[in-house]
Amino acid sequence: MGNPKSIEPFFTPKSVAVIGASEKPGSIGHTIFDNMKKSAVGKLFPVNPKYESIQGLKAYPSISAIGERPEMAVIAVPAKGVAAALEECMKLRVKAAIIISAGFSETGEKEETQKIAELARKHPRTRVIGPNCVGVLNNHNKVDTTFFERSRMKEPKKGTLSFISQSGALGSMILDWIATQEFGINKFVSYGNAMDVDEADLLEYFGKDEGTKVIAMYLEGAKDGRKFFETAKKISRKKPIIVLKGGRNEETSKATASHTGSLAGSSKVYDAAFRQAGIIQADDLLDLFSIAKLLEREPLPRGNRVQIITNGGGFGIVTADQVIANGLELAKITPETAAKLKAEMPTITTGNPIDLIGDADFERYLKAIKACHKDENVDILMVLVLFNLPNLEVEKLAGLTKPQGKITKPMMVVAIGSDFTQKYLEKVEREGFTTFNYPSIAAKALKEAVGYAEYLRKKK
Amino acid sequence: MGNPKSIEPFFTPKSVAVIGASEKPGSIGHTIFDNMKKSAVGKLFPVNPKYESIQGLKAYPSISAIGERPEMAVIAVPAKGVAAALEECMKLRVKAAIIISAGFSETGEKEETQKIAELARKHPRTRVIGPNCVGVLNNHNKVDTTFFERSRMKEPKKGTLSFISQSGALGSMILDWIATQEFGINKFVSYGNAMDVDEADLLEYFGKDEGTKVIAMYLEGAKDGRKFFETAKKISRKKPIIVLKGGRNEETSKATASHTGSLAGSSKVYDAAFRQAGIIQADDLLDLFSIAKLLEREPLPRGNRVQIITNGGGFGIVTADQVIANGLELAKITPETAAKLKAEMPTITTGNPIDLIGDADFERYLKAIKACHKDENVDILMVLVLFNLPNLEVEKLAGLTKPQGKITKPMMVVAIGSDFTQKYLEKVEREGFTTFNYPSIAAKALKEAVGYAEYLRKKK
Repeated sequence: MGNPKSIEPFFTPKSVAVIGASEKPGSIGHTIFDNMKKSAVGKLFPVNPKYESIQGLKAYPSISAIGERPEMAVIAVPAKGVAAALEECMKLRVKAAIIISAGFSETGEKEETQKIAELARKHPRTRVIGPNCVGVLNNHNKVDTTFFERSRMKEPKKGTLSFISQSGALGSMILDWIATQEFGINKFVSYGNAMDVDEADLLEYFGKDEGTKVIAMYLEGAKDGRKFFETAKKISRKKPIIVLKGGRNEETSKATASHTGSLAGSSKVYDAAFRQAGIIQADDLLDLFSIAKLLEREPLPRGNRVQIITNGGGFGIVTADQVIANGLELAKITPETAAKLKAEMPTITTGNPIDLIGDADFERYLKAIKACHKDENVDILMVLVLFNLPNLEVEKLAGLTKPQGKITKPMMVVAIGSDFTQKYLEKVEREGFTTFNYPSIAAKALKEAVGYAEYLRKKK
Repeated sequence: MGNPKSIEPFFTPKSVAVIGASEKPGSIGHTIFDNMKKSAVGKLFPVNPKYESIQGLKAYPSISAIGERPEMAVIAVPAKGVAAALEECMKLRVKAAIIISAGFSETGEKEETQKIAELARKHPRTRVIGPNCVGVLNNHNKVDTTFFERSRMKEPKKGTLSFISQSGALGSMILDWIATQEFGINKFVSYGNAMDVDEADLLEYFGKDEGTKVIAMYLEGAKDGRKFFETAKKISRKKPIIVLKGGRNEETSKATASHTGSLAGSSKVYDAAFRQAGIIQADDLLDLFSIAKLLEREPLPRGNRVQIITNGGGFGIVTADQVIANGLELAKITPETAAKLKAEMPTITTGNPIDLIGDADFERYLKAIKACHKDENVDILMVLVLFNLPNLEVEKLAGLTKPQGKITKPMMVVAIGSDFTQKYLEKVEREGFTTFNYPSIAAKALKEAVGYAEYLRKKK
């Protein structure tokens, strides 16, 4: 397969049938139909033989009864009815079908699973996502088949991160976390048991997708390892791919079989293959989040030399330790920059960290930041702020705006504290800067960004 | 010295003189005096020849002019005046003196530094904390010489964690972070250049201090390595000591010299010494926070077998990976427990993770938690909750109260998400359970708690 055009209708369908749409609030068929009504899809058809109309729209007993061909069908009926519904879609030459229903390979239902697999082979013109998934969310036109409980989640902002998740629930958690952030989601897809469309197809699609700058994935096991890694190798030269691999150990890979029906495979084999394919492997969820955030918001670093600027000596030192622990280098600013800073601000220390000391005001930060942005020995800026120190004009600091397109070095602002600090740190983030609470998390994310940038340079 | 009794007056002085107390709002002398007025100290004397009265109290031109001997003196005058003020305190046989003023060994002022060191040697009856420090906070009687900007910080709750910080600013940051948590501070001390009272003296004191259950430290370099590690070895058999070492690399240890005037020393030597002394070494701030939180709130684990309980398969798998990555074991519940759970809840999987699956309600969690608490093959419980899944009665789950004294296994609740999830997770924490946002952070903290518990068992 590997034809990204065949994936497009999942995200921008002109018309959609929801098979199993329902009038019953709280049911999956009701939630999906309700979500889809809010989307920018031109035509929407509820399909359910039990109803005359659903949520105010005429209902159809079957997809064939609609009288025209919907571009996409969402199948949310009990497992026993899935094969029949799918076959009907395929005969109609529906381009995209999402099977939400669970109860297939992940629970050992061989017969049903085989039926669907057989249909997918016979009718390659209809691409199938699922079964056992929550489907897709296009955050721009709001095509949305996910049946998450909206009242318990926040809506993520629009952005350029696209996220592929084998697991639906984990996907919901990650979307909900992203909603707390200033960066946003472009498209999300949970593909479950991957009977037809798999991680490689989706990767290929997002590789071509213009709205996608960064691809993040939760992967338990690739359906076709060779295809996946070959695709990844191609895409990673254009866009970063960050993967959190679930089931990295013999014991945990067994658990993935009952979760999404996939065999996770040996960790060592995967680790090496990830590296060779230019994939950034996240150690855990925290890592996935911080790397994705950094890559979505900041330019790629041109080297690994980090300059720390701080108003707290100890804070600077523990951060410098983290920079080194993550294989990065402490930058050495040029004697010219050091002399200039020292002349302007005699009380500071101009090593690395540059310690603006406890009575630092906004001007000191501004001078140090500007000088380091210009300094040829600096690739990355880590700006640490103790917002609680009395001399700092926090409003000014938090109001510092990022000059669009002019900044070519990644810069992050790191601070930790209670409400006051958090409020100003969030303001900093809203102004376009990338913030972290902990030096270790910032440094680890940086390490991966630096590694990816190096990978790209080698490939050129 | 190592006489913990000589340290007591710093935290529970019957009377205090503030030398350099001021009427000028925003000045250090004003802030300290203002804080001290709110404390439970019986008698308070402002000392400053410039004023007749300070903040409504009669002011004295010198400490000798008071006419009685204050138990503690806080010295907050310019560096040039410190030696004279200290000598006066010593002649009066003041028991405890805190030198807030900076401008000594950390800035290379040899003469002033030597004067103070000489005085400390000549008058051992007066114990001295500082110079270049923020002094002490006793969170119970509110004796407080820290001059932090209160409007920019939250007040930490009362608790059993005592915190020793070489750096004042880093200390303020950590106190402010603790204020966001449900656990609290007993006593805090920043000791700066450690000319008399050093980290070992403070460790000895907190080792004996009944209100202190856990000791956390930020250390750049021990003044007397042998004394420090010998003291630590003794104390660590009674209470956990968690140390974040600043300046763990050749490059960063240089920076500590200009910060607190201490030579940090080689990382490898320290690492080995920490291990031998039973000290838990935190890799970074995040680690320090999470280990301290876990040890303050939970019983020590009897082994390393972790049982994961979840309502999200993928979430469970990535957590299991973290458990293994941190050298812990996935528990194997007894066949009896598994059979009982399966009989009560046929749809769940009873491996590790125990997957209560997406439609789990509160009762499922309760049954699984209770069974695992009883199971002899389980040492630790990690309960993962996707609060956003629609079937879960979040109020009930978050309202689950911890039976006082009855729980002998550490249990933590892990969840991540936006406002809804965070609200209920905080409720869980208020009910006495220990919560984390990320499996990796929880697992890393657990690893240290397990390691410390093993250390104690070996020593017995």
